[in-house]
Amino acid sequence: MEFKVLHKDTQTAARTGVLTLDRGVIQTPIFMPVGTQGTVKSLSPKELEECSAQIILSNAYHLFLRPGLDIIREAGGLHKFMNWHKPILTDSGGYQIFSLSLLRKVKDEGLDFQSHLDGTRHFLTPEDVVRVQQTLGSDIMMPLDECVHYPVSSQQAQIALERTTLWASRSKKEYDKGLCGPDGVRGELFGIVQGSTYEDLRKRSAQELIEIDFKGYAIGGLSVGEPSDLMYNILHSTMPHLPEGSPRYLMGVGLPEDILEAVSMGVDMFDCVIPTRYGRNGSAFTSQGRITVRNGEFSHDQKPLDPKCGCYCCRNFSRSYLRHLFNSGEILGLRLVSYHNIYFFIDMMEKVRAAIKENRFKEFKASFLGAQCV
Amino acid sequence: MEFKVLHKDTQTAARTGVLTLDRGVIQTPIFMPVGTQGTVKSLSPKELEECSAQIILSNAYHLFLRPGLDIIREAGGLHKFMNWHKPILTDSGGYQIFSLSLLRKVKDEGLDFQSHLDGTRHFLTPEDVVRVQQTLGSDIMMPLDECVHYPVSSQQAQIALERTTLWASRSKKEYDKGLCGPDGVRGELFGIVQGSTYEDLRKRSAQELIEIDFKGYAIGGLSVGEPSDLMYNILHSTMPHLPEGSPRYLMGVGLPEDILEAVSMGVDMFDCVIPTRYGRNGSAFTSQGRITVRNGEFSHDQKPLDPKCGCYCCRNFSRSYLRHLFNSGEILGLRLVSYHNIYFFIDMMEKVRAAIKENRFKEFKASFLGAQCV
Repeated sequence: MEFKVLHKDTQTAARTGVLTLDRGVIQTPIFMPVGTQGTVKSLSPKELEECSAQIILSNAYHLFLRPGLDIIREAGGLHKFMNWHKPILTDSGGYQIFSLSLLRKVKDEGLDFQSHLDGTRHFLTPEDVVRVQQTLGSDIMMPLDECVHYPVSSQQAQIALERTTLWASRSKKEYDKGLCGPDGVRGELFGIVQGSTYEDLRKRSAQELIEIDFKGYAIGGLSVGEPSDLMYNILHSTMPHLPEGSPRYLMGVGLPEDILEAVSMGVDMFDCVIPTRYGRNGSAFTSQGRITVRNGEFSHDQKPLDPKCGCYCCRNFSRSYLRHLFNSGEILGLRLVSYHNIYFFIDMMEKVRAAIKENRFKEFKASFLGAQCV
Repeated sequence: MEFKVLHKDTQTAARTGVLTLDRGVIQTPIFMPVGTQGTVKSLSPKELEECSAQIILSNAYHLFLRPGLDIIREAGGLHKFMNWHKPILTDSGGYQIFSLSLLRKVKDEGLDFQSHLDGTRHFLTPEDVVRVQQTLGSDIMMPLDECVHYPVSSQQAQIALERTTLWASRSKKEYDKGLCGPDGVRGELFGIVQGSTYEDLRKRSAQELIEIDFKGYAIGGLSVGEPSDLMYNILHSTMPHLPEGSPRYLMGVGLPEDILEAVSMGVDMFDCVIPTRYGRNGSAFTSQGRITVRNGEFSHDQKPLDPKCGCYCCRNFSRSYLRHLFNSGEILGLRLVSYHNIYFFIDMMEKVRAAIKENRFKEFKASFLGAQCV
């Protein structure tokens, strides 16, 4: 993996970069659609390519439980299994073990938990989690971490941080053994900064991870229920502690306004289920703000979701038709709005990159958000 | 509309033909995917074109109730509303009024019923139903008919037949006023042969419709619960009473074996919800027979649904992956199997036409059905 900062915005900390991986070259800042169970919900891989997706996300915990590693190994890895041949970043699933599964015991050694699907009991160490992601053939792996809820005491946050550092260090040692995925791609390992909403803990976490030495740094444990302002503050105070020359990834964020704010602070990578989750509920992101397709006001509206959008949905279907599809419970409705939303997020990031290159990101952000309020 | 029989099979009554409509030229025998509510369930219009669909079906009753004619009129007709620009055949929805709605009263004048969606009360005459379909911009319209259940007494069947003839005659008069759809396409009106399982009634129905003079003839009231053998017998005895030079359409049929049997008797057009309904349930049609994707036996199966199929699903995804999608409740699973099934039915008809042209339809049918039994 190679990461190069191409251009730094003159008015904000935003920057463009290029991340070169074995399976593809990624322009940053980038939005990564989420395919938790080995499919970006309701979209085909062909449609992801139409939307110009450069990299997608998947989840080691989910795939480990279902369909299981043997099946993905037999398929020749996750890329072949799901027919997506560009890079895949896999989340370790630490977050899911803490939030979804019946957690039996957190020990320094690893996690003892029961599957949320069938109650089967499992024990995973940080080393296991690296090996799981190597078996999947992940292009960017995330180490097992302990993600705390919000709010949490500084003492609890510190215990989780210390364990996260310990696990990061063990993950790195496992990774350094040099094992490769099913088709010889080794993939990269990032570190995950924790520390909840405590600036001193965030700083400490960043410093300890840098000492271990990762190729990229993620900021975890944000967007877990805290107010936006607090998230921005924590992000703002954490960013200076991350190396300039490495990609910075804000996990699980978020709404367009959150993404733009984080870009202005120098974040390079984003993922979020919002475009597809909102899409399935008929909520569409547009250049004029969010609209709820099901609303009666659109029943006679012959305009596309977003007149400024060039996606398949906007080039071919009216709000009136989409409303009819949702009202009739037709799958094509949620497909089209999910597709549009993914396109919208990826397209927004392309505009973000163009604006940064021309040192007008601040104006772009103001104008984008201003239009959203109409 | 023009219909030309191109070639008659030398061993069976199968024939190929070409049906020329304002919006497209259709090779027969043809399978028409069903888009009851203005969308072929789970597929986009682009995917229907990828599957080489030449014409699709929609339903006047459903669209009349939801979204309502004013909305489709404002969109410029059904083709523009749903973004499908090839021909659409619309069923009158008589069958749905009898089966879905709360029917209040059948009079010679028309049907008094309550919507199955919201209980609103409506009265529709045969003339109304023609005008509804003209507003939709239908390429082939079906008149309001009275479709009886199976089994039914010959007396009841006769009453329904007589009303069907009366309504057919009134529909024709309404059609003969020469009104056009929203973009100036007039469309064609077919007649529907009824008569339940009574050969003499079927013959009488056919003769009365021919006297009214339609451009095409549909066989209704079959595949409503009667045994296959009885359906074949009735079809066999009805076909000789239909004009050679007009297209013959067997409504709502069916499984591949039923379609092939009907083709051998000279049927030209078919529609059925089976490919998409079975697809949503994970049941896939293949050259070796039907398979249930969810079955445990496919969990490690790296083969495509049908190794002989060239569709997007079969070129890119394994049974193992499809099973995972169904087990995980992922929409892409039912999309892909629905897509494959539509492709399979349309592709089968292409092979049917090729076989007829070369006078080897009988062998083709035997070999196709033989392979299905493996």
